[in-house]
Amino acid sequence: MEFESKIRTIQWVDNISRMVDQTKFPDEYVYVDIKTGDEMYDAIKTMIVRGAPAIGIAGAHGVVLYALELQKENLSLGDFKSKLIEKCDYLASSRPTAVNLMWAVEQQKNLIKNCKSNIETLISDLTQQAIRMENEDIEINKAIGRYGAEVVPKGATILTHCNAGALATVGYGTALGVVRSAFANDNTIQVFADETRPRQQGARITTLELTMDGIPTTLITDGMCSYFMKKGMIDMVVVGADRIAANGDTANKIGTYTVAIAAKYHNIPFYIAAPLSTIDTSIKTGDEIPIEERSHDEVTHINGKTICADGVNIINPGFDVTPHELITGIITEVGILKPDYNKSIKEAFEKKSPVLV
Amino acid sequence: MEFESKIRTIQWVDNISRMVDQTKFPDEYVYVDIKTGDEMYDAIKTMIVRGAPAIGIAGAHGVVLYALELQKENLSLGDFKSKLIEKCDYLASSRPTAVNLMWAVEQQKNLIKNCKSNIETLISDLTQQAIRMENEDIEINKAIGRYGAEVVPKGATILTHCNAGALATVGYGTALGVVRSAFANDNTIQVFADETRPRQQGARITTLELTMDGIPTTLITDGMCSYFMKKGMIDMVVVGADRIAANGDTANKIGTYTVAIAAKYHNIPFYIAAPLSTIDTSIKTGDEIPIEERSHDEVTHINGKTICADGVNIINPGFDVTPHELITGIITEVGILKPDYNKSIKEAFEKKSPVLV
Repeated sequence: MEFESKIRTIQWVDNISRMVDQTKFPDEYVYVDIKTGDEMYDAIKTMIVRGAPAIGIAGAHGVVLYALELQKENLSLGDFKSKLIEKCDYLASSRPTAVNLMWAVEQQKNLIKNCKSNIETLISDLTQQAIRMENEDIEINKAIGRYGAEVVPKGATILTHCNAGALATVGYGTALGVVRSAFANDNTIQVFADETRPRQQGARITTLELTMDGIPTTLITDGMCSYFMKKGMIDMVVVGADRIAANGDTANKIGTYTVAIAAKYHNIPFYIAAPLSTIDTSIKTGDEIPIEERSHDEVTHINGKTICADGVNIINPGFDVTPHELITGIITEVGILKPDYNKSIKEAFEKKSPVLV
Repeated sequence: MEFESKIRTIQWVDNISRMVDQTKFPDEYVYVDIKTGDEMYDAIKTMIVRGAPAIGIAGAHGVVLYALELQKENLSLGDFKSKLIEKCDYLASSRPTAVNLMWAVEQQKNLIKNCKSNIETLISDLTQQAIRMENEDIEINKAIGRYGAEVVPKGATILTHCNAGALATVGYGTALGVVRSAFANDNTIQVFADETRPRQQGARITTLELTMDGIPTTLITDGMCSYFMKKGMIDMVVVGADRIAANGDTANKIGTYTVAIAAKYHNIPFYIAAPLSTIDTSIKTGDEIPIEERSHDEVTHINGKTICADGVNIINPGFDVTPHELITGIITEVGILKPDYNKSIKEAFEKKSPVLV
């Protein structure tokens, strides 16, 4: 049985990129139309669109928006291509940790570099590739959901951190795709959502999308996970990923690593759910993953109001790295990868269906 | 060298209890005068005064306030005593987890039960006992600070959770008493303060009192602790306690247990700092400690604004229990207790100086 979600996070419509404005949650669920490449850069940077897979699609859309702008300048094909490549690199710099953005922009760059026809054809190809990526993202998420649902026990309570949901992807979710697929089979499962300070994606976004889709959800603060684990109230943890190294070390939203340690201490399975495009085999271990340092206001202010004394120091890493030894499995569109991850990741890329690339 | 703190949290002045209003942090640092027993019940319940040792003193003050009210009713000594005992039990029910409140109220009840003179003398005795408790609280905290400072490495970064500071006690602090004493010897130490959702005592209170006293402090969100531990940026953890069982299991603010697990995983010393009055030898293990379930608004709202979707479930335990096996030592006014805690706690009570009771 397939789960039908009410949510479509991002979609290419008539030469604009239409997306749900995620900075307005939980007060409003509204769409915003992104019409230029620079608007897309800002939308990614300010997290109007967020979530590694959704950012990837946003990047692909952004390249098309820049191409449509450059088209008006009557450039030669060569100048058009070199200017557009510059814009691609600029777009890719908007968020440094998520590999999906680099991956999606790289796919568009390959089309640009290899183009030998004309600007119109190139723009058409870039558009078609962006739309194909959108559709594939949903198909990949549903495949992740199907594989993941197989390891969800009957009546399970699933803890998740941040939002790796429909609203982090085009429309079904990775970690929450697993939840949706499991819920379609067994409507007695439920979710515990970590608030996920500083930006509260768990509170603002995960509770919103799960209640919209009728899945029972309990919101907890980030420090509470161990309390509920000890009480036997958490059966498994499933989270998303922003970048996975060749050895399985996984960068995800700050706080994930703490949850993984708590899960290990209580002997609770801890899964990553992510498409293969999140895996960056060019880096050997998590130590090489750049960690974005975000604005200090995210820690010191909530809803525009300061929560701490003046004169306090702040460090605000956006992500942390969960080492592979804490990860029970990585749920991908080609199956659940198990340790040794160096080996299973390599095999996954070898057997990856061309449809899913 | 002794550290001079600027902070006096609670003080008996001219038949009123004067306290810093801790619900106003970090915007305002203002005093409120509590003039009746019922006002004191509300002040404890709504956390105008909070922190286990400070609540104990507030309880002792509250008994005197009720006594002063009952004095106006011209009761017989017998009726006065029985009505006042009822008020004591009511006061003690305002916060169920902190044992110091029960302990302090029990000390007052003993005076009441044993009184054979008259109401005026009893009220004078209750008042003197409350004032003695205040002074002893500061002396006990300074003793905790001296013992604790001995295990703080030079230039250490100390992680703490919630607020076990001057503002949780009469005026020096337990966990932050250790910090103050260590800082007096070595001004290169610094503190990392967990925000401590849901009520953000770390952000609102710990950052305030440490910056007031000139101690360098970095505010982090609750999920970040493991990230900084892995980077080698945390040398030790020191937290307070709300109740300690005979085997060393320790109830403290929700989230403490998660920090303790993370410290264990990274092999970082994890200390409890608390007066012996926090130890409840009548209970064998942490399983017997009642955990207060607090208002759901604390999770769903920050500064009066909702942070999550409607229709989400909430569970809001105010405390968790850190099992003794995660605790490196319990820093008390008679020294640092080490495992086996059943043995060391028993010995501590045997050698406890009468001055400190």
